[in-house]
Amino acid sequence: MKRARIAYLGAIHEAVEMDGRLKLDDGRIVEEHQVVWLPPVQPRTVFALGLNYADHAKELSFKAPTEPLVFLKGPNTFVGHRAHTRRPSDATYMHYECELAVVMGRTARHVKREDAYDYVLGYTVANDYTIRDYLENYYRPNLRVKNRDTCTPIGPWLVDAKDIADPMNLTLRTYVNGKLTQEGNTRDMIFSIPVLIEYLSSFMTLNAGDIILTGTPEGLIDTKVGDEVVTEIESIGRLVNTIVGDESFNETNM
Amino acid sequence: MKRARIAYLGAIHEAVEMDGRLKLDDGRIVEEHQVVWLPPVQPRTVFALGLNYADHAKELSFKAPTEPLVFLKGPNTFVGHRAHTRRPSDATYMHYECELAVVMGRTARHVKREDAYDYVLGYTVANDYTIRDYLENYYRPNLRVKNRDTCTPIGPWLVDAKDIADPMNLTLRTYVNGKLTQEGNTRDMIFSIPVLIEYLSSFMTLNAGDIILTGTPEGLIDTKVGDEVVTEIESIGRLVNTIVGDESFNETNM
Repeated sequence: MKRARIAYLGAIHEAVEMDGRLKLDDGRIVEEHQVVWLPPVQPRTVFALGLNYADHAKELSFKAPTEPLVFLKGPNTFVGHRAHTRRPSDATYMHYECELAVVMGRTARHVKREDAYDYVLGYTVANDYTIRDYLENYYRPNLRVKNRDTCTPIGPWLVDAKDIADPMNLTLRTYVNGKLTQEGNTRDMIFSIPVLIEYLSSFMTLNAGDIILTGTPEGLIDTKVGDEVVTEIESIGRLVNTIVGDESFNETNM
Repeated sequence: MKRARIAYLGAIHEAVEMDGRLKLDDGRIVEEHQVVWLPPVQPRTVFALGLNYADHAKELSFKAPTEPLVFLKGPNTFVGHRAHTRRPSDATYMHYECELAVVMGRTARHVKREDAYDYVLGYTVANDYTIRDYLENYYRPNLRVKNRDTCTPIGPWLVDAKDIADPMNLTLRTYVNGKLTQEGNTRDMIFSIPVLIEYLSSFMTLNAGDIILTGTPEGLIDTKVGDEVVTEIESIGRLVNTIVGDESFNETNM
């Protein structure tokens, strides 16, 4: 089952995929282009991995970590499928990052890796855009790099865990304006999904709805205003995002 | 006005301080010891400052930062006044950190420092416990250091901004088992409250209810199971916390 959260005609609905269309929780069937896609899970605690693919760590000239390099993401950075992402006017380098997102299904504490999948609700696709300008350090100052408004599209679907035979063997691909620019496979993660759940739950509680963004393989390039960036994971989904200019937001403080 | 969120006889209430007692939103007046104190603001995006007092940076042998060193805190780390905080069984060093917490009152983006206080709802006290074992680096790996369950008591009161003439001149004190162990003043922050709001709102949106933990001065010592730790800020409040053993939680995964 593929599930979505969407806004349609004045209300937010849960929906499931049905023959390329959306079946809403009230029974209505609508076309994908008729709705506003929201993140399929409302972000609570969201963990993200740095340098979890060895090829990507090498690409950035950092040594591969010997234990998971995890940071938190704030709520304002998340947007859904087909969102517009603001390219900050002060950024020189803005890279996409196609990542498998693991959504937790229940409270987890001191979970062993062999039991870890019992705690997973499902999977979705994230594009964890990075403002590279500030990556000074292995542990980096993360806030300006990873928490810009609208800079983490996620979706379209939450795919039930039971529908994915092996989440550690999925192809990830990114296309910029239709051209393939990144390709990798989740099997190349340094710390696998079960290891990450064991690690995190060893020192803090994970709850239903918490999300782990599992890192990205190599193949990152700078993106520009106007680019359409599609991050795609085999069997999980195809997340479409468009980059727009920061200056198009004429903000007045409220 | 001093405001609290408390649980009492089966429900959560807003309350205000009245002559040392609590007046609930339904008019009842109760004693402080009759209620369970919750964090006075439900945590949404919570920012915390590293090394924002020069004396403390020096104490840790780090150079003082030249721009704010900010990280995010997850929701499970927060507890209210009179909570029990778990000392992780794998921790060698666990330090309290008395910090002034600034609560935002409305949406802020591109706010200038001279207007920053217009966006502040009020202030409370936080004790941002730190597991020192993992402080490898200036930017540190923060998750295991700063996001343990129950390791950020906050409260008791949210004090209205208008009641605090100068938040940049408040004495902070910590007492462990009744003995004064930390004393400082908010005037010694490297980055003041207006500068922090200008900085954060320059690259991301702050919302009503967002919290900034502004860092701690020097005077940190290790705390042990059984310690009563009181963090106190002049005119803001006196936050009481007790450290308990991690092993007393016999967790069964749910």
